[in-house]
Amino acid sequence: MGQLGAVTPQRMSFAQPLPLRSGAQIRDYELVYETYGQLNAARSNAVLVCHALNASHHVAGVYAGEDKSEGWWDNLVGPGKPLDTDKFFVIGINNLGSCFGSTGPMHSNPDTGRVYGADFPVVTVQDWVDAQARVLDQLGITQLAAVLGGSLGGMQALDWALRYPARLRHCIAIATAPCLSAQNIAFNEVARRAIITDPDFHGGHFYQHGVVPKRGLRVARMIGHITYLSDDVMEQKFGRQMRAAELGYSTQDIEFQIESYLRYQGDKFSDYFDANTYLLITRALDYFDPAREQGGDLSRTFASARCKFLLASFTTDWRFSPARSREIVKALLDNKLDVSYAEIDAPHGHDAFLLEDPRYHGVLRAYFQRIAGEVVA
Amino acid sequence: MGQLGAVTPQRMSFAQPLPLRSGAQIRDYELVYETYGQLNAARSNAVLVCHALNASHHVAGVYAGEDKSEGWWDNLVGPGKPLDTDKFFVIGINNLGSCFGSTGPMHSNPDTGRVYGADFPVVTVQDWVDAQARVLDQLGITQLAAVLGGSLGGMQALDWALRYPARLRHCIAIATAPCLSAQNIAFNEVARRAIITDPDFHGGHFYQHGVVPKRGLRVARMIGHITYLSDDVMEQKFGRQMRAAELGYSTQDIEFQIESYLRYQGDKFSDYFDANTYLLITRALDYFDPAREQGGDLSRTFASARCKFLLASFTTDWRFSPARSREIVKALLDNKLDVSYAEIDAPHGHDAFLLEDPRYHGVLRAYFQRIAGEVVA
Repeated sequence: MGQLGAVTPQRMSFAQPLPLRSGAQIRDYELVYETYGQLNAARSNAVLVCHALNASHHVAGVYAGEDKSEGWWDNLVGPGKPLDTDKFFVIGINNLGSCFGSTGPMHSNPDTGRVYGADFPVVTVQDWVDAQARVLDQLGITQLAAVLGGSLGGMQALDWALRYPARLRHCIAIATAPCLSAQNIAFNEVARRAIITDPDFHGGHFYQHGVVPKRGLRVARMIGHITYLSDDVMEQKFGRQMRAAELGYSTQDIEFQIESYLRYQGDKFSDYFDANTYLLITRALDYFDPAREQGGDLSRTFASARCKFLLASFTTDWRFSPARSREIVKALLDNKLDVSYAEIDAPHGHDAFLLEDPRYHGVLRAYFQRIAGEVVA
Repeated sequence: MGQLGAVTPQRMSFAQPLPLRSGAQIRDYELVYETYGQLNAARSNAVLVCHALNASHHVAGVYAGEDKSEGWWDNLVGPGKPLDTDKFFVIGINNLGSCFGSTGPMHSNPDTGRVYGADFPVVTVQDWVDAQARVLDQLGITQLAAVLGGSLGGMQALDWALRYPARLRHCIAIATAPCLSAQNIAFNEVARRAIITDPDFHGGHFYQHGVVPKRGLRVARMIGHITYLSDDVMEQKFGRQMRAAELGYSTQDIEFQIESYLRYQGDKFSDYFDANTYLLITRALDYFDPAREQGGDLSRTFASARCKFLLASFTTDWRFSPARSREIVKALLDNKLDVSYAEIDAPHGHDAFLLEDPRYHGVLRAYFQRIAGEVVA
């Protein structure tokens, strides 16, 4: 199994405005993307990988001269890996509104000449998918071999299947849900309130004040992190381990290792993640609900789908539990679609979709081999 | 089934310093308490009710002239109710460090003449139980018929059984745990960070600045509230109900009813709850771990217990799941103690212990009837 080695992000500009679900539009925007492997002559071996909250177009490989710059799904994507770049042309696109290169809240609004900040339009999963489709248009890719995504990325994969049925042959949606539950929305809302009520947020226009709402970002990330991990894995990794041999009897100092870990995660995140992007992305999660226009009937919703599906979930994921994936599987079966479903017994909670579990990667490897067998070079 | 009617809080002063687990001590403190029913001639029918995070000595009854002033466990405690005040003398004591009347962070430190604020000593479940024992001394109650508590109150009930084995005949611990899990501590820590990093917290000395760290308190309460409710009951009550017919496409305005509900709970809480008290009480939860001194061996820990036990848990409680109660039951059985255990199939999550579920209240009614049958008047 080889490595991709050094990869280079590319940039695509769009002069034509993109109409958004909100009724607004965005113009003169750029999207950053990366590709790995070679597009075959028939242009039939492209796989789009959609990213979730805290990720980007940098799916795999490293940046030359940068330590620890592996892409976020480098364990999955590369030569000889489950998504094999010797066979597939893999594309990662940074979504609109992100803080990792594509046009986002920290960029200049061409209508005003000022930084967007909180005025960046609210973007939805559908908007992202529409923007991704335009990238593929420019790359000359009419039909994808597959769209793959986990969590929020899985929602994008599902949306591709629903709204661009002719443009993909396989939809691979991992650790995802047909919509957020009340509890999911609740966690997002608390995180947003922590950011918005941070005095350094300045109504989303903190850039011009030269500050960052780090307090809010830290709390938001700590909450998120708790929901990414299973209760069990937290117990196994940290349990009630103390930082010192003796209790310090303090409400403000760190006593337990889990506190130290969470604070570290929060600090790190607040150093690089944009607060407005966090709001936008959690809102895109909240809004995703393709069955809404069908009166909540998920089976009717998937009547438009034509591709084949692989769904996977993880037993200890309490953010997007297996029951949520099974809702999708049922709706697909109701439409007599070709569905494979793997429920992986993994201890890591929602984070499992990013990790290298042999059973999980085995399922993906087999499925991509099947797709590769179908690809006409 | 009657009502208690108007009740009156009482106040007890303690000149003798109370030594605390931290090594500090607290002197010249007061505790507020309420009693319902009559102490019998043998002083053998007293039941102590211990409170959890957001409660007080005001367990039952109402305050004259105050609308909606029912005590927090009024559905359980009163004439003819499961904990029948026609038979039992019920005592509620507000714990040290609370913001509901007993000496706490907003009171004056006799050593300095200034408001305690963040200098209020860290208090533990054991400290609270020691303080409660002194109240009983003054009331002339040598042995309680029972100690009853849910959640953090259940931890106090367990501590009574462990450290004052001769002073109670029954321990009733509901929806509780032998110690917090890493995930439990994690949620507490995020809530504390939200409060402590609120600029209005001023290191815990916000009183003298004339402000209250409301932003932090709101976020803390929203997080807490999510963990009190089951995923199912949230889904049932709120699901994805929108506030308006159409999406507003905003990251800051309320879109979903669950957001409105959480913000309301946060606002209400921040109006009356003290930030330092919140820190103290969540820390008391974190620290509770009676097995720690026995190398984590819960069975050995309960070797000192002599009383009979009733444990109860709720199937949908993911904060203190039934598995945590079963750990306690096992340790009690290992010591050949008399244990009853009820696992109640209730949809309400952790909050279920405060609600009037017929099966749950049936179990408590039957158990208190058994205790009443043993009481020698």
